[in-house]
Amino acid sequence: MERSIDKATLSALESAEKAGISTVWDRCAAQVPQCGFGEAGLCCRHCLQGPCRISPFEDGPRTGVCGANADIMVSRGLSRAIAAGTASHGAHAKHMAHTLLKAAKGEAPDYPIRDENKLKAVAARIGVSVDGREINEIAEDVAMKALEDFSEKETPLTWAVTTVTKGRVDTFLKLGVVPTGIDSSIAESMHRTTYGVDSDPVNIILGAVKCALADYAACHIATDIADILFGTPSPVATRANLGVLNKNAVNIALHGHNPLLSDILVQVAGEKVLNDSAKAAGASDGINVVGVCCTGNEIMMRHKIPMATSSVSQEAVILTGALDAMVVDYQCIMPSLAGIAECFHTKLITTMPIAKIPKAEHIEFHEPDAKECARKIIEAAIVAFKKRDSGRINIPDISSTAFAGFSVEAILSALSLLDREDPLKPLIDNIVSGNIYGVCLFAGCNTVKVTQDANYLAMIRELAKNNVLILATGCASGAFARHGFMTPEATEKYAGPGLKAVLTAIGQAAGLGGPLPLVLHMGSCVDTSRAADLAVAIADKLGVDLDKLPIVASAPEAVTEKAVAIGTWAVAAGIPTHLGVVPPVLGSKLVTEVLTSTAKDLFGGYFIVETDPVKAAKTLISVIGERRKGLGL
Amino acid sequence: MERSIDKATLSALESAEKAGISTVWDRCAAQVPQCGFGEAGLCCRHCLQGPCRISPFEDGPRTGVCGANADIMVSRGLSRAIAAGTASHGAHAKHMAHTLLKAAKGEAPDYPIRDENKLKAVAARIGVSVDGREINEIAEDVAMKALEDFSEKETPLTWAVTTVTKGRVDTFLKLGVVPTGIDSSIAESMHRTTYGVDSDPVNIILGAVKCALADYAACHIATDIADILFGTPSPVATRANLGVLNKNAVNIALHGHNPLLSDILVQVAGEKVLNDSAKAAGASDGINVVGVCCTGNEIMMRHKIPMATSSVSQEAVILTGALDAMVVDYQCIMPSLAGIAECFHTKLITTMPIAKIPKAEHIEFHEPDAKECARKIIEAAIVAFKKRDSGRINIPDISSTAFAGFSVEAILSALSLLDREDPLKPLIDNIVSGNIYGVCLFAGCNTVKVTQDANYLAMIRELAKNNVLILATGCASGAFARHGFMTPEATEKYAGPGLKAVLTAIGQAAGLGGPLPLVLHMGSCVDTSRAADLAVAIADKLGVDLDKLPIVASAPEAVTEKAVAIGTWAVAAGIPTHLGVVPPVLGSKLVTEVLTSTAKDLFGGYFIVETDPVKAAKTLISVIGERRKGLGL
Repeated sequence: MERSIDKATLSALESAEKAGISTVWDRCAAQVPQCGFGEAGLCCRHCLQGPCRISPFEDGPRTGVCGANADIMVSRGLSRAIAAGTASHGAHAKHMAHTLLKAAKGEAPDYPIRDENKLKAVAARIGVSVDGREINEIAEDVAMKALEDFSEKETPLTWAVTTVTKGRVDTFLKLGVVPTGIDSSIAESMHRTTYGVDSDPVNIILGAVKCALADYAACHIATDIADILFGTPSPVATRANLGVLNKNAVNIALHGHNPLLSDILVQVAGEKVLNDSAKAAGASDGINVVGVCCTGNEIMMRHKIPMATSSVSQEAVILTGALDAMVVDYQCIMPSLAGIAECFHTKLITTMPIAKIPKAEHIEFHEPDAKECARKIIEAAIVAFKKRDSGRINIPDISSTAFAGFSVEAILSALSLLDREDPLKPLIDNIVSGNIYGVCLFAGCNTVKVTQDANYLAMIRELAKNNVLILATGCASGAFARHGFMTPEATEKYAGPGLKAVLTAIGQAAGLGGPLPLVLHMGSCVDTSRAADLAVAIADKLGVDLDKLPIVASAPEAVTEKAVAIGTWAVAAGIPTHLGVVPPVLGSKLVTEVLTSTAKDLFGGYFIVETDPVKAAKTLISVIGERRKGLGL
Repeated sequence: MERSIDKATLSALESAEKAGISTVWDRCAAQVPQCGFGEAGLCCRHCLQGPCRISPFEDGPRTGVCGANADIMVSRGLSRAIAAGTASHGAHAKHMAHTLLKAAKGEAPDYPIRDENKLKAVAARIGVSVDGREINEIAEDVAMKALEDFSEKETPLTWAVTTVTKGRVDTFLKLGVVPTGIDSSIAESMHRTTYGVDSDPVNIILGAVKCALADYAACHIATDIADILFGTPSPVATRANLGVLNKNAVNIALHGHNPLLSDILVQVAGEKVLNDSAKAAGASDGINVVGVCCTGNEIMMRHKIPMATSSVSQEAVILTGALDAMVVDYQCIMPSLAGIAECFHTKLITTMPIAKIPKAEHIEFHEPDAKECARKIIEAAIVAFKKRDSGRINIPDISSTAFAGFSVEAILSALSLLDREDPLKPLIDNIVSGNIYGVCLFAGCNTVKVTQDANYLAMIRELAKNNVLILATGCASGAFARHGFMTPEATEKYAGPGLKAVLTAIGQAAGLGGPLPLVLHMGSCVDTSRAADLAVAIADKLGVDLDKLPIVASAPEAVTEKAVAIGTWAVAAGIPTHLGVVPPVLGSKLVTEVLTSTAKDLFGGYFIVETDPVKAAKTLISVIGERRKGLGL
């Protein structure tokens, strides 16, 4: 199997090979064959009587020591993965909410409220009064409401029920899957999956869905507060891929997820004194900040910071020999980075108390003196720059233009150029007419188990040709950005005639002199909540529930437990959701059936697992067709 | 390997074999050889790029796909086990706190406050004012304080810091392991163990210790509220082992953990109308309730209900053919029970929405009409009784007397007969004099991986002979109860001269005409917090911290993730803690070293892993000796 179709990544891997440095691809090859029990979800270590395993074939024991059969094992494993994903987005969201609270109280002066309109819109939606109040008062109440969503209470999560259709809330209530606390939902999943608690696989999965809806709320809180503190994104043009590194600059890669660190660091990186210091150290172009993974999305859409690469190829940034510091917060940070950084002059800098890496330098980041911390980090990068070995620099001269920052607000603003009174109308008219056949959101990661980016590109070609409007978040965004699919040129080249006409009409009304990009970049993985918001707006406008819309989702290269949580809430939201990698559930026919079929009866959404990207795209197109038929279109 | 040394269990297993019914021992045999990677903690399924595994030998890859090495994998696995254990005790405690709140508000009339003294003592300890207030007002405040401990807040958990020595709090603060929320600690552990978050094994373990201290708080809350609602236990005499089933009665086994269900059911089981109904159905002795597992402990110590058996042999109760209903709440309920009940007339009844079992009857239990629910359950048992096949009944005529209910309050009350002014003084004097060489708390489960009960009995013989005072909770209690070690006779037979003299002096002062039982039964697994309270009282009295006391703990047959959590907080509390089964950590030398050695430098407590029970007891005795030496004794 080819490792990637991204030439920049391949070039970096070639350097690695020459230098005898092993990467994630080598480590994956060394793991093959992977454990068949684990792949099928058929092993359990939830008590000390294990490990137990069940053969995916007809031989061997059919239960573990306690009597748990394949259905129980698989559903328990799935539930814990969703709990971990929810814990990740929850931690991110809670971190944001605490900072908003500090900001409102004047305890975090580096975090002014940058988007008062967003603050007021969020406040109004969650029932915080706005009229005649100081901004900081409103912010404090919003932050407190967000923090309340983490503890168990008697009422449903504010962010789960105020952001979806009434129909969804009714469905969730009917099925008993409305979460009443983010942290408490995680705890509940961990409890019911321990030895001798829940042994009903369907009950376990419904519990996991509840937890996934808590994940949705967490994602939404994270997005809302990021916009409040750092501004709601609007379209910007930048570049993506390793070619954005600059051999004449101190290159600093920001990697991870939470904009609390990265946004401040970007602000500080523009300071003259730091740039002068970089120049004095020999970097004639001063400081060059680039993004990796979801942090890359956050700073790309708000600050035009170029994106170096996505998650699976994070090591490649160091392999260029031109990276002076890799600064990380949390999530998707390969522990291998420390070893690879050691082969170069690159300083790996960890910043969060809960995410350390041995051999990395730990510069702890605190919101109350955020800019000071950021400056320290940049100074460490400048020191590292001085040790750079120019003979080892190999920056592939490869990058693409990428337009980023299509928040819902930005999309509606563009649409309002076509219909000021009713901005959604042109979108809906075009869906009704078939110019836009449907909408597909791409989300998730890049995985080493699939040729990097291949699934994304094969699917988008097929979908765009068939006039499916493409949205993207997370490392899906990264893939499209690096390959030039976030450009008007891609629209010209790949969009079917209907889609092209719509994107061109909007683009021209916006004064771009051409179409909108083929892929609308909505942000990082927590920003998948933006896509949900758009779907809810369309549903409410049409007067139908989400499970009737010609909207689908795809995670063709999913990796993280967060992706499992997001996929599950997408399904619960009524969205047919494709996975391009096989999750560890095939060991249970029952669980597989529940996820791919029963879910449709319960929620309208369901999982479609298909590893062939062209087949997957065709399936999604036919699903959209069914949905259109259901709406009489 | 012999399956059990309990003749009643062996007799039931013989019946099973004859009937062709497979039990946990057969399922365990079928799992052998268990996966060596899993046993060493060297497999990881925390992302979809896995499963990854690292050979415990020098061959094969040394990291997973992401670069996680053995140390990271093992510490992550351990951390998630502790998170799950904490989630279990947390759910139990939260359930209690919600019920106390309902009780205080008059919304749960079946739960009067039975122990006002305990309520006031708890209130005073946690800073809830008592003077001149109505009981229900105090109860409401205590319940609210308990519920507050579940959400993240800026201050340490009330139940974690008000129940330990000042020295411990200082140590916890210094090491950054003071939890600020039970549910939030679980969420934090799940976050830092997902793909690409915490990659520093020592940092991961310190995070896990924080979570384990949240588990301690949860256990303590559960115990406190159980005493408030159902009464603080004081010594009672009852019987234990399968012989407590009665072929002339409707036999109902209560199995699980939380007394909210079981205590009410026991109360209702005495009602004349139900007993008449049982008699009318042909059960001349009416209704006979027996306990299993920790529920067994709860109702044994508060209601003299006999204990049928412990967790690993739970299936044996059904195998007698004389069990009419097995009523379960949550935790340690083998899913296999459904299949075994199907081979008999036995009705398996699940009661909790988060713990269902396919093919069981689900009668959901709600606190507001608790007694009504309990009556329905008993009626279902009477219906089942009518289908009993008398030809298949095989109740082994085996049971032992067992004295249960040695809460700290009960122990102090007994000691006050020797010194009314200063009840702890006689205990401490005897420790100082060496009559009591030290104290060993036995806790944890029975595991199918070890000959049932063998470790317990071998260890206690050695320890008692050397004048070590024995406390027990959880299924450790069950083992000692079934084998007659909770009797004065056992003291006579096994205690060394010093220990015998002390137990006899107290027993005679209490008017028992003989010694106290050799094992002081402190309750269920959450009641391990009672042992901690006793240790704290001794430490405070001596003016030293817990890590100086001649107190050790042992879980010779640990099974559950809860046991991992308890063991970890015992270590953090400064108590050397023995494990008789090998936890899945040996794949990492570093983690093994941290748990068994570095922990000693940090906390004073540490794990001792030793599968040979006699060697283990000798080691504990020498550890006690070191501690005595440290105290100048």
